[in-house]
Amino acid sequence: MRPPSTPIEVPILKDLTIDNITENVNRINAQCPDARLKYVLERLVTHMHDFARETRLSTQEWMAGIEFLTAVGKQCTDVRQEFILLSDTLGLSLLVDSIDHPKAPFSTEGTVLGPYHTHDALPGAHGHAISADPSGTPLLCLCRVTDSSQRPVPDVKVDIWETDSKGSYDVQYEGYSGDNPDGRAVLKTDAEGVFWFKAIVPVPYRIPNDGPVGKMLEVLGRHPWRPSHMHFMFEKGGFDHLITALYLRGDPYETSDAVFGVKESLIVDLGTVTSEQAKEYDVAEGSKLLTYDFVLETEADTQKLRNEQAQKAMEKLGIWEGMTIINGLPVPAVD
Amino acid sequence: MRPPSTPIEVPILKDLTIDNITENVNRINAQCPDARLKYVLERLVTHMHDFARETRLSTQEWMAGIEFLTAVGKQCTDVRQEFILLSDTLGLSLLVDSIDHPKAPFSTEGTVLGPYHTHDALPGAHGHAISADPSGTPLLCLCRVTDSSQRPVPDVKVDIWETDSKGSYDVQYEGYSGDNPDGRAVLKTDAEGVFWFKAIVPVPYRIPNDGPVGKMLEVLGRHPWRPSHMHFMFEKGGFDHLITALYLRGDPYETSDAVFGVKESLIVDLGTVTSEQAKEYDVAEGSKLLTYDFVLETEADTQKLRNEQAQKAMEKLGIWEGMTIINGLPVPAVD
Repeated sequence: MRPPSTPIEVPILKDLTIDNITENVNRINAQCPDARLKYVLERLVTHMHDFARETRLSTQEWMAGIEFLTAVGKQCTDVRQEFILLSDTLGLSLLVDSIDHPKAPFSTEGTVLGPYHTHDALPGAHGHAISADPSGTPLLCLCRVTDSSQRPVPDVKVDIWETDSKGSYDVQYEGYSGDNPDGRAVLKTDAEGVFWFKAIVPVPYRIPNDGPVGKMLEVLGRHPWRPSHMHFMFEKGGFDHLITALYLRGDPYETSDAVFGVKESLIVDLGTVTSEQAKEYDVAEGSKLLTYDFVLETEADTQKLRNEQAQKAMEKLGIWEGMTIINGLPVPAVD
Repeated sequence: MRPPSTPIEVPILKDLTIDNITENVNRINAQCPDARLKYVLERLVTHMHDFARETRLSTQEWMAGIEFLTAVGKQCTDVRQEFILLSDTLGLSLLVDSIDHPKAPFSTEGTVLGPYHTHDALPGAHGHAISADPSGTPLLCLCRVTDSSQRPVPDVKVDIWETDSKGSYDVQYEGYSGDNPDGRAVLKTDAEGVFWFKAIVPVPYRIPNDGPVGKMLEVLGRHPWRPSHMHFMFEKGGFDHLITALYLRGDPYETSDAVFGVKESLIVDLGTVTSEQAKEYDVAEGSKLLTYDFVLETEADTQKLRNEQAQKAMEKLGIWEGMTIINGLPVPAVD
């Protein structure tokens, strides 16, 4: 049901029942002057109430939910975002990324951000060794960024993060302060769209499973593993912000990622550094090699695609009538 | 969609899209050995994903949601439950109470618990003065508890709580430790089902609006006021747990309660203490008087009603087929 587009009449909020509470909550919320927020809230309240009605949710279950969400909130710190982890493990993060960052064929697909991105990494030059872990298997990474016409894109800010050889991000180290980032770098692409750096071969790891989300996975009989991967984030004015990751083929968790992030187009086979490359990049011959060409969409193309896909999807859901797109997001049209 | 009742085949979790992520998340969650939890999770994930699809939720909005929920969690303390407040202000609390505590006609209706119940109140005798606030308007409360056949119910534990004359609960006082409960009492009904106590006339108050839920109401253009009321909770083995409240007729917020709790059957007109009552109960003649007869349902009757209403409601929603009731809650039947 849509909130009324006629002037809001504040409802009489009394004797609310299982059958009429939803429309009444939506009517009082419809005083909100922001049409988009009003629509989002109307859908949120309706789905939350329908969830309770369809499950006949008990007071005890409701309280368990309240306590679970409270524990999730309490687990959040500057370096751990348990709500993102919850969203990741319930597939919401991947879904939202897919909706908000539609990709034309051949553009690099996005995937989950995860809870471990920080702003601590310092800008590095090409060739930067992003990992100080001596136990890691050295990995030379030679990458390039192009637009959808295969033209190199220079000056892209590239944010990279990976775990150490034990599967821990720096923020998970005891006493981590942010002053000593490791397994992270921020690079810029050169005139040819190239960026290259030295890293270590990613390993599978468990998402933090000592908190409420870990307990949830356990109760659900799900494992907490993510397949080996390295995160990348690309930013440049005029291009759609790309959050993605590359996954290693053949990983034991390739088809059971706890956060649903793996896409075939993002799976790579590692190569081997040739003697020529060894000299050029100052690494040992025979080392592991990762090469990948990332393809960015322009903001304009993304916005066009986003609008088209929004309309198409909402038509399919039967909820497009009476809607319009404002600032790239669907809202009920005002009469 | 129902989770399959055939043995779970773990899905290949790769290349998940807007259109197939929901069924895949539900399939991996279907490993859960608890049939009820599996059903609740399946409905939760489906509604959460449908919400994102119907709104075409943006990454920025998703992040605003993550930050909002995190702030709600951070606001929770031993004496403040911001998630309950969120549930209250979105109508979920009243809905869940209505589902879980169905009432036959003439039984006392339930309403929201709210975030201010504590376990600090000490057992008091009849006549107990629950409020130490000298600025409050004295109120003599003469109440009785019966079953649905109007027989008195003795030995019911009655938990009562109200604000002071400024609209604050004791837990909201600076430095509140729990050692000095005020505006609270726990009484027992006598052989006649009677309990009586001295209180103060309730006043309207604002739900705590200095946190994220307060900000939400502000953004939505909603006021944070609750009409004057006094909370009651009734417990006795064999009877359905009753959480309710009495509201004063004519309150300025009678029809716009921020948490949707007002029901006509719970609105009272205050009376005046007669000279006889003044002597009997040792209060000033002409004082304000509250009288109310609470009617409890038995657990057995409630369970019967709950099951009947669950089946009826789910039939109406078209989701009853293939369901059964286990421990009073609907779950998909196993083949």
